[in-house]
This record gives sequence, C-alpha cells and structure tokens, in this order.
Amino acid sequence: MSAPEHLALITHRPDGVAVGFLEADVSRPQLSVLDSAPVRGDGIFETFSLANGRPQSLELHLDRFAASARALDLPEPTLAVWRDAIFAIAAHFADVEEAWLKIVLTRGVEAGPAATGSAPEGTAPTGWVYAAPAPDFTRARTEGISVAVLDRGLRSDVAATSPWLLAGAKTLSYAVNRAAQREAVRRGADDVVFVSSDGLLLEGPTSTLIVRQGSQLVTPPASLGILAGTTQADLFEAAHLWGLSTAIEVLRASDLMSADAAWLVSSVRHAAPIREVDGVTITVDAELSQGMNDFLRSRRA
Amino acid sequence: MSAPEHLALITHRPDGVAVGFLEADVSRPQLSVLDSAPVRGDGIFETFSLANGRPQSLELHLDRFAASARALDLPEPTLAVWRDAIFAIAAHFADVEEAWLKIVLTRGVEAGPAATGSAPEGTAPTGWVYAAPAPDFTRARTEGISVAVLDRGLRSDVAATSPWLLAGAKTLSYAVNRAAQREAVRRGADDVVFVSSDGLLLEGPTSTLIVRQGSQLVTPPASLGILAGTTQADLFEAAHLWGLSTAIEVLRASDLMSADAAWLVSSVRHAAPIREVDGVTITVDAELSQGMNDFLRSRRA
Repeated sequence: MSAPEHLALITHRPDGVAVGFLEADVSRPQLSVLDSAPVRGDGIFETFSLANGRPQSLELHLDRFAASARALDLPEPTLAVWRDAIFAIAAHFADVEEAWLKIVLTRGVEAGPAATGSAPEGTAPTGWVYAAPAPDFTRARTEGISVAVLDRGLRSDVAATSPWLLAGAKTLSYAVNRAAQREAVRRGADDVVFVSSDGLLLEGPTSTLIVRQGSQLVTPPASLGILAGTTQADLFEAAHLWGLSTAIEVLRASDLMSADAAWLVSSVRHAAPIREVDGVTITVDAELSQGMNDFLRSRRA
Repeated sequence: MSAPEHLALITHRPDGVAVGFLEADVSRPQLSVLDSAPVRGDGIFETFSLANGRPQSLELHLDRFAASARALDLPEPTLAVWRDAIFAIAAHFADVEEAWLKIVLTRGVEAGPAATGSAPEGTAPTGWVYAAPAPDFTRARTEGISVAVLDRGLRSDVAATSPWLLAGAKTLSYAVNRAAQREAVRRGADDVVFVSSDGLLLEGPTSTLIVRQGSQLVTPPASLGILAGTTQADLFEAAHLWGLSTAIEVLRASDLMSADAAWLVSSVRHAAPIREVDGVTITVDAELSQGMNDFLRSRRA
C-alpha cells in the first residue's frame, strides 16, 4: 500500500460555490478538527481509479457525487472546478499504471453543538482531492475473495420510507462499513456482502455485487438503498463483449450460493470474483473475471 | 454559539498507548486529511459540560468512551492521560458558567483503500480535546422543544444480533443523526425522537429520552442499541429528590403521547422538556424541568 502523495484543496466561497484549488502538502495537517468531516462524518466522497493518470468513469462518479450532495443537503458541487483539480492531481500519475484518486466535500467548519441540526451560518464547505499509487490487487482479481454475508440492519425499502438514513448516499460516515469488514476478518473472510433485514442481497461495504446466472449478469437495484455502482455500470455497458445480457433485479441470499459466478466490483480493486461465501466454496469464472478486469483497466474515459 | 477556543492534541505511541498531550492552536489546521476521522468517520467521541471549568459526569463519560473504543476495536484509551488533557483544557473555562468539552479518538492516519478492513500496521491513533463556551439553552430548557418521531431503520435487537452495526457506540459517523435533525427542521420541529423499525422508542440523535408516568421516570434500555445516557444516569440517581422512582423499560411510540411529561436530556443542553410531538402538544412539567436543570448545572463531579 502506497501512501497518498498529492493533495489539492478546493477553495469555496461562503455561498458554497467552488472558485479554484491549490495543491498542498499531504504530509502536513491541512484540516481543522472542527470540520464537519472529523466532527460527525458529515460529508461525501468518491474514489476512482487512474489508468496512467487518466481518471476512469469520471462523469459517472461526478454524477453520483452530486447526487450524494443533494441527499445530504450540501451545496451543489461546482463540477468544473472539481474536474480541474482532479486532472491536476491525476497528471502526477501519468507514469503509474494503476492509481486511485479520492474527492471529498464536507459541510465545513462547525462552531459546536446546536439545539437543532441547522448548520452555523456563513460556513463555507471544505473540499479536497488526493491520489496515490494503487496496491497490487492481482491476487483478489485472479484467485478471488471470500466473503461473509452480514445483515446491514436496514429494510430494503428505507430509501423510499426514510431518506434521512442516507441509504445510497456515499457519506464519510463509514464506521459501520469498516466494522463489518473487521467482523469479516474475524470470521476468516476477506470482505462482506450485506443483506437487508428482510433478506435481500445488497452490496459490499465498498463495492457492488454482480452475479452471473447463465448468460445474464444481474445486480440488485439501487432502490434498495444501495449505491448505484459506477464499475457495475461500465461492466453492464460492456457485457455484450462477452455475449452476456444484463438485468437489475432483486436477489435473495440463496441466489448468491446458486449463482454460476459472483463478483464484488469497485473502482480501484475492479472485479474481484467471490470464491467462498460464509465458508462454502462457489464457482469462480476465471475467464470472465480476466475479461472484466482487462476491460476495466483499459477504459479511457 | 461560541467557537472552540482551546485544543489539546494527545500524543500516542504506535502501540496505541497515550503518553501525553500538547496544547495547540484550534484556529489552525491540525488534522491530516488521511486521518480515519475525515476518511470514514472511524473514531469515537464524548461531549460533556463544564460548570465553571469543572467537568461534569467525567467518569461516566470516560467509561462510555472506553466502551465505544472496544465496540470499534480501537486501542483502550489511556484514561490517565485523557484526564490530564481534559483538566488542562477545562481550566481555561473557570470563569465561564457553562461550557462544553469534546474528546475524540480515531484509528489514526490511513494509507488508503485496503482489500480487507484491517488497519495499516504501525499507525498510531489520533486523539484530541477541545472546549468552548456553551450557547444559551434557556429557551429549550424552559419553554421546551418540539420533536419529530423518525424511524432509525434498525430493529430493536440489532445490538445483540449485529454488533458490527455499532448501535450504542458513540462514533464519529453521525451523518444520519444530522440528516434526521435536518428532516425534523423541514417538518417544523426542533429535534428528533428515533423509533426502531419495530416501533420502540429509542433516543434522540444526540440525547436520551426520559418520560414521566405518574411518579416514575422511565427511559428505554441500552440493550435496544442506544447510548447509555450519562445525563439520564445522573438524573435517575437524583430522582428521589423530587419524590420520583425510576425504571428502565421498553416504551412504544404511543407511550410518548400518553406520558405525563417527557424530556430529551443531554450533556450540554441538559433537560429539554418536549412540548410537541409531530405537531401535537404534550404536557410540559415546568417545575420538574427546572428542578432537573438546577440539579444538572450544580453537579460537582
């Protein structure tokens, strides 16, 4: 794992509009302890891959970034400025085959506890971009990963009934996602597949689930309160290359065990075939996994 | 609302033991953007009140801080060092009648996305303490607050079935708590009372619920996946002063409407009587509210 090497700080006006960015030293403290990110995980992010310095699926990520901002009542991100900052940071990685880049937007510096949830007036949002060489994921992409199936606690209808639960928004409040991954490690697994409290397959803590049923790739609908996967979207666009159709459908936990193959796909690790579910071996489709990963690495936009 | 004025940074060894602290300038950036707090809301906190510079309910808060650390697999906090830092910061507020102080412990600086949830080796935790004069909560304490009842999405048994959901730990991943408070404001209310997906009363996003039923104060059990309230514990210890008994019992949403009085109690705002639930007026017990707040302000430990 290589540490991030380059950082840009986005400059925001108090009205929430971004006006520019400055590169900064990532090895130095750059954030106030009063920022809403460390105070309450109150912000949003996106992580995407850089292929020789080219951001992959940039517009899908920026669309989702803007959707997360709306879900959290954050100011609309000024995407032109974010794109400039992203390309400036990405340019440092032109000689690196695989790198990752992360963008973060928060509500800004907070003054302290309030009687209600209203933000202190006149606070500008905080934003930043950083990037690092990617770790080597060859093993996960070829040999596959083992997963534990864990209850996410939420019903599959919360995105419709309870938008304040922020299901489907990519927030900085990921302590539960990390705790679930530690629980998986305790169970001898590499990663997690979440199920809803009513037994529907959802997603991984940092990835999207895809299963193959015959000649069809299937992923659960975002309406279940999960993230619309950018890597999944790119793979579904490309499925015809492998003679496959695609469907977005509700899946039950048993569908994972009976699938012809399954993957957790994400922006940086790409397609990791699932080789074991709660200790039970399932089929790895090595050829299709390699096809997916070759395709994902080769994306030029 | 007054901004925090004093900050201390805890010094940790890589093995997680705290060895001291340094006061630092809270108006300057002191935190890495790579810290697990801004990266994933992966850390814990406590907020408590200072009465003329004396920390109130210090040991209850430190006990809960240590319990939260265990729930998140963080290193056990070195409480002797935290106490020293707390008293050093609190001392600046000897002339301030009411102030608040916050302590935060995170997993430390992260190197980047990992295939599993395991932390990068050799990373020391990050910790800090800051404090500020309290806002004036007179109106909330006397006239009371209106609340919206919102589904927290989780069943009442998740603390037992699914510890990775961290229900009952005081984590930095509070984006949902803030979103719920914004939803309350949209509904014309001041604050929120969460219910479980199976209809049991839980807590506020940053407070504990207490109802009065006749001569008994009742609060929901922490086993429902809610925080063990420090202010509630102090009030229950003192209930005999007002001729009241206490009980920890499961309450249904209807119990809030039929209560003789109800409060959201918390460390800084103290006891805020609920005067309205989803737009329906409920009885405010002004005399008992004042008794509670006088008691809470006067605590000497």
